[in-house]
Amino acid sequence: MFEVKPIGVLHTPWRSTSDCPRNGRRADPPPLCTAELLPEYLDGLHSIEGYTHLILLYWLDRAGKPEMIFTPPGHDQPRGTFATRTPRRPNPIGLSVVKFEGLDDQRRLLVRYLDCVDGTPLVDIKPYLRTTDSEPEASMGFQTNRTR
Amino acid sequence: MFEVKPIGVLHTPWRSTSDCPRNGRRADPPPLCTAELLPEYLDGLHSIEGYTHLILLYWLDRAGKPEMIFTPPGHDQPRGTFATRTPRRPNPIGLSVVKFEGLDDQRRLLVRYLDCVDGTPLVDIKPYLRTTDSEPEASMGFQTNRTR
Repeated sequence: MFEVKPIGVLHTPWRSTSDCPRNGRRADPPPLCTAELLPEYLDGLHSIEGYTHLILLYWLDRAGKPEMIFTPPGHDQPRGTFATRTPRRPNPIGLSVVKFEGLDDQRRLLVRYLDCVDGTPLVDIKPYLRTTDSEPEASMGFQTNRTR
Repeated sequence: MFEVKPIGVLHTPWRSTSDCPRNGRRADPPPLCTAELLPEYLDGLHSIEGYTHLILLYWLDRAGKPEMIFTPPGHDQPRGTFATRTPRRPNPIGLSVVKFEGLDDQRRLLVRYLDCVDGTPLVDIKPYLRTTDSEPEASMGFQTNRTR
């Protein structure tokens, strides 16, 4: 076992999991959310301003019990957890590629495309690198007809 | 604090952190690596075959002590940890977008573009969705001249 510690908290408009969009690009328009770091981590933001996109990792603390196979909403066949982005995973780590709109005057990150509940613990911030993270031609298996 | 449990292990050609490439696309050619799940998680692979790319999260158990500011190799200025992909993060979770080459006869995942040490604990497998994960126009701040 390894220990993950919250480095901050995410603020979103969604108060419960049932309010959340299926992903952060389905909200129209995608609302501005904030990521607030604990003071001891603020120095880690140095030079982050030039990125247009970030990867946020967060702990889905309201996810249900993990399940290895389930039928996703709107689908008619069971699928494996690792073939989906369900929160009910062995380690409930959420991942969003977000648009980064800069820091506010309290050094909170302003971001769009989050899809999690208000108050979700933040566990990491990584710069999005198009050179290693972008695969615009990737095939999406049974989700191939998905548009966003 | 939250507890992360290993769900499996990554097998790569690199025996120590000093052998590892700076990222998995710099190895030429990128070698075939494997991700081996513990038996209790194998059902979670159902329907994963149709994806060409996956996101692997792993625990960088040999990362040094976290540091909030450092000067990356080959750079001349200090940068914040969250503006880089250094392993020395508050939560040493590694993330790679990998090319998925299928399952072998023991249901190990065959992947390319990993960059971590052999034996690194695996903590999550997510399908790569070009609809939410691909940002080919993203700007990379001080790493803007990077090609891979």
